[in-house]
Amino acid sequence: MRRIKLTVAYDGTQYCGWQVQPNGITVQEVLNKALTELLGVQTRTIGASRTDTGVHARGNVAVFDTESRMPASRIAFALNTYLPEDIRVQKSQEVSADFHPRFTSTVKTYEYKILNRTFPDPLRRLDSLFWYGPLDLEKMRRGAEYLEGTHDFRGFASSHLSAENTERTIYETKLWKEEDMIHFRITGNGFLYNMVRIIVGTLMEIGKGDYPPERVLEILEKKDRSLAGATARACGLTLLEIRYPEWENSAENG
Amino acid sequence: MRRIKLTVAYDGTQYCGWQVQPNGITVQEVLNKALTELLGVQTRTIGASRTDTGVHARGNVAVFDTESRMPASRIAFALNTYLPEDIRVQKSQEVSADFHPRFTSTVKTYEYKILNRTFPDPLRRLDSLFWYGPLDLEKMRRGAEYLEGTHDFRGFASSHLSAENTERTIYETKLWKEEDMIHFRITGNGFLYNMVRIIVGTLMEIGKGDYPPERVLEILEKKDRSLAGATARACGLTLLEIRYPEWENSAENG
Repeated sequence: MRRIKLTVAYDGTQYCGWQVQPNGITVQEVLNKALTELLGVQTRTIGASRTDTGVHARGNVAVFDTESRMPASRIAFALNTYLPEDIRVQKSQEVSADFHPRFTSTVKTYEYKILNRTFPDPLRRLDSLFWYGPLDLEKMRRGAEYLEGTHDFRGFASSHLSAENTERTIYETKLWKEEDMIHFRITGNGFLYNMVRIIVGTLMEIGKGDYPPERVLEILEKKDRSLAGATARACGLTLLEIRYPEWENSAENG
Repeated sequence: MRRIKLTVAYDGTQYCGWQVQPNGITVQEVLNKALTELLGVQTRTIGASRTDTGVHARGNVAVFDTESRMPASRIAFALNTYLPEDIRVQKSQEVSADFHPRFTSTVKTYEYKILNRTFPDPLRRLDSLFWYGPLDLEKMRRGAEYLEGTHDFRGFASSHLSAENTERTIYETKLWKEEDMIHFRITGNGFLYNMVRIIVGTLMEIGKGDYPPERVLEILEKKDRSLAGATARACGLTLLEIRYPEWENSAENG
C-alpha cells in the first residue's frame, strides 16, 4: 500500500465546499469519484483543509492510499483527465504511510482579493469580491498587523463555534494593491471557522473609516464577535498553500 | 432623441458571440433586453465589434437612441442591475446623433492570453488558453513584429471569407510573460474574421519551433491560409479597447 499526496486547485464557485456532505456536490466527492474511476477501485481521500462553500484553492492538500503501481508523479496528469475543468490536481507525490494532511504543524496561507473600481469586471468575478467605494489601505494594513502573533481569535470566529482551543498564531499579513485589485494574504498555523472572512470584513470597515485600526486589538482582547465586521463573501477567498515544515525538512522529502 | 454610447465588458464563455442570431443567446440580445426593461420601451443597440462565440471583451462599444431623460452617466449603473453577472457596462455617455460605432477610423486592441505551465489553473481558465509545453517568446515576438504595418492579411483570415478588402494596418504588437501567463496584444485599424486567433495559432507554432518567425512574412506574401497555424481557441481572446481617434479629438468630447 502506498500513500499519495495530492496538491489540488479548484474554483469553488459551484461546490458546497471541500468535504463530502449530503446536501450538495463537494470538491472531495468529485475527487474521490475521479480517483475511483482512474484506479478502478473505491478510493477515498483525506483532506487537509475543509474549505467552505464557494471558497477556492490553489493548493489544498489531500492524501489517499492505493495498491496501484502507477508512478506517483504521473497520477496528477492521469487524474486530471477524469476531473471537471474547475478542479485540477497540481502535483502528486508519494509520502510515507504516517503522513497525515492535518498534521498539527501546518502553515497555511490564504489570500482574499477585493476588486476595487467603479464597475464589476466579468472576467475577474470568479475569485474576488467587488467593492466600488474608497478604502484606506494604510489603515487596513495597520489593522492587519495587529493580528500577527499568538492570540485567542475567538472574536474573529463564527459564533456557532463549538468549544475548542481558539488560540492560533499568525506569522505574517500582507496587504497591497496591483492596479485595481487589493490583495490580502495571511499566513498562520491554523484558522478558525470563517476566521479569514471575518478578518476581511473587519478590515473593510477599517478601510471605509467606520472602525479605527485599533478595533482589531479590541476584538482580540474582548473576544467578542459582535465587535467585528460582517463575514466577507466566500468568492474572494483562496487557500493558496499548505506547508508542512517538519515533514518538508525530514529526510523523506530530501 | 439622444444617442448613448456604452462601453461593455463581458465573459463570452456562455454566449454565441455578440450579434443577435437565431441559434443561441448573444451578448447583444441580452443587452437589448436589459435596456428595454430599464427604459420601458423596445430598444436596440448597434455594436462596434461582432465578437465571435466564446470571445470576451473589456471594452466593446455599442450605441442606442432613447427619449429617456436619465442622466447619461447613470445609465451604466442602472443597466447593470438588469444584466447577468457575466456582462457589465463600464461606461455610458451621450454622443452626437451621427456617432456610429463602426466608424472607418477605429483603433482596436485585442489581447490573447496563454497560460504556460505544467497544469491548468481553474481560477484562470475563463480568459486564457492553457499550454503546457515550452514556447520561445523571443521567436514569437519576432514573428509578431512582421505583422506591423499595412498588409493584405488574407492569409490570416478564415478561408470562408467573403470577397472584400483584406488590407489592414497593424499599429503595434506586444508579447510578454508575467509569471506563467503570456500576454499578446495587437492594435490595428481593423481585423478580418478570425484574424487574431489565426495569428496566435501561427505564433504558437513559431514558439514551439515548428515554423520559423519568417513564416509570418511568407503568409503575408503568398496570402495562403494553409501556411498559417490553426485558429487558436476563442477562450483566450479579449477585445480590450476600441478607440475613435477623430471623434475623441473633436470638440464634442472635449
